[in-house]
Amino acid sequence: MTPDTLLSWPTPSRSRNAPPVEARFAAGTAWIDGRIVPVAEASLPLLDWGFLRSDACQETISAWDGLLFRLDDHLDRFWRSLERLRMTSPLSRDEIRGAIHALIATAGYDNAYVQIIMTRGRPPIGSRDIRLCTQRFQAFCIPYVWIATPEVQQRGLHVHIGSRHRVPATSVDPMVKHYHWLDFELGLLEAFDHGAETVVLTDGQDHLLEGPGFNIFVRKGEKLLTPRSGMLDGMTRRTVMELCADLGISVEETDVPVAALRDADEAFLTTTAGGVLPVASVDAKAIRNGPGPFTARIHAAYWQRRADGWLGEPVDYTVPAALASE
Amino acid sequence: MTPDTLLSWPTPSRSRNAPPVEARFAAGTAWIDGRIVPVAEASLPLLDWGFLRSDACQETISAWDGLLFRLDDHLDRFWRSLERLRMTSPLSRDEIRGAIHALIATAGYDNAYVQIIMTRGRPPIGSRDIRLCTQRFQAFCIPYVWIATPEVQQRGLHVHIGSRHRVPATSVDPMVKHYHWLDFELGLLEAFDHGAETVVLTDGQDHLLEGPGFNIFVRKGEKLLTPRSGMLDGMTRRTVMELCADLGISVEETDVPVAALRDADEAFLTTTAGGVLPVASVDAKAIRNGPGPFTARIHAAYWQRRADGWLGEPVDYTVPAALASE
Repeated sequence: MTPDTLLSWPTPSRSRNAPPVEARFAAGTAWIDGRIVPVAEASLPLLDWGFLRSDACQETISAWDGLLFRLDDHLDRFWRSLERLRMTSPLSRDEIRGAIHALIATAGYDNAYVQIIMTRGRPPIGSRDIRLCTQRFQAFCIPYVWIATPEVQQRGLHVHIGSRHRVPATSVDPMVKHYHWLDFELGLLEAFDHGAETVVLTDGQDHLLEGPGFNIFVRKGEKLLTPRSGMLDGMTRRTVMELCADLGISVEETDVPVAALRDADEAFLTTTAGGVLPVASVDAKAIRNGPGPFTARIHAAYWQRRADGWLGEPVDYTVPAALASE
Repeated sequence: MTPDTLLSWPTPSRSRNAPPVEARFAAGTAWIDGRIVPVAEASLPLLDWGFLRSDACQETISAWDGLLFRLDDHLDRFWRSLERLRMTSPLSRDEIRGAIHALIATAGYDNAYVQIIMTRGRPPIGSRDIRLCTQRFQAFCIPYVWIATPEVQQRGLHVHIGSRHRVPATSVDPMVKHYHWLDFELGLLEAFDHGAETVVLTDGQDHLLEGPGFNIFVRKGEKLLTPRSGMLDGMTRRTVMELCADLGISVEETDVPVAALRDADEAFLTTTAGGVLPVASVDAKAIRNGPGPFTARIHAAYWQRRADGWLGEPVDYTVPAALASE
């Protein structure tokens, strides 16, 4: 099997190939103050503490071939983030579910990337008491995002081990899906400086944690290793662990030394924005078998299960009348 | 000297007591896309990575009695943040200076709180390459903010030592004035749970670092101690160190154990949003002499210097014609 045929994707079977409700929604949609607007018009109040203090949480949900993936699990995790940040959603779970469907339906996408966002809001004028804030919900939908294109996936990504450490759990709870990403942002710039395409950050004790929007798996012999704590428990990470149980592949959640990655038999990244992404090299040194056969099996299983509708919820393409126009 | 007469403020001598340029600017102004708008209308594009990745930096500058304080020092530090984040300002230093003056002039304030903000922007549609982002400048001006009211300052603040650690320098450079504040936000909620009014975070090694928007000083005998690294080098902290040199008060920048605060003779916080704020108690145990005589001397010197125009730049209340109306 050569690298350029290693990975495969099922042929979409549900494609509607339908236009957006209106041409102005073609580039994406956003949910702002209970209305759907073109994504380019979407904004956040400048004084919302979601921005001025990065006091916010989010979930990123994908639809592929007209099926939303693990929507209930994402909503569960969103509510977990809200609880840990002591936020109260102004919308019910069903209302948020409806907003997600409506955003995709209005854009008319088969393959979509949806982000739902809760911000702290802002206390009344003259107060700085965080307890007086009313939370604010917003969301946006754009075409499905690939952290790496299918072409780059075939040959694998070039990864850099960042010199910065991921913001630790002792400072910010990684079980909250938050926006504290300056470590990743500067890590990406550092990766580019070194000719790599993305970055993985460590815990400062030389253990792998995560990269900007993805978890990491390392194969040693017949077994996969993945970090056990200090990073987001990604939805694709969870999915891969469930797939591996079905495929009879052993996965150990443990402290994974950077050296284990450098000396791996294979390695891959997992993300809602692209699925299962093989690693080709680490700090310019090629991974032994990357992309390799375990990665290919898990990649195929992941996309086949999604095509089969596993944990999928069909997008309701009926745009609610109240939202269908201005 | 009783606590309710310990602290004093000079009587403002320059007050214009003038209205805003238009009534809609009374609550504040913002600089958005080169225009001045009422602060309530100010917004950020939802997809700006300044929000979605908290990839942004800021400076907060105060004007008191018609005088901007240390504006050049703030602009120097803003440019230091930009360099460390590898951002390029779309506005020149003089243009940003002009925006600051124009925001205050349009609001008509004698006493103002101005925040200037640079966000990463967003790469072109379809790209996730941070290097392709064009940075975005925005700013807002609201009435001068007190972290604690003058009344609370007289009796001192009740401080809680947070269980979370401040985001470490190994993750995010504290010399960049950034918005990674979830540790502070949840620390504030924890402080309120304990009946305190604000929070100070440590480095996890039981050394004090900083609180939400302020640095901390501790008096032991004739000497002041203040953390030496791991926190923002606040402008009011810098000012207090310069004042102490003039007042003959010794200040040591060092690792300051939490125990040194608990057993302090006095302690105070320094911030652009209020100046010099005495600490009354730490974790519900009263500080020996807080508020005390050293704090009162430094407080008086700080406000007297500002009233005298030290490092002050008079606000130019002539609103540029191009901005005076829609």
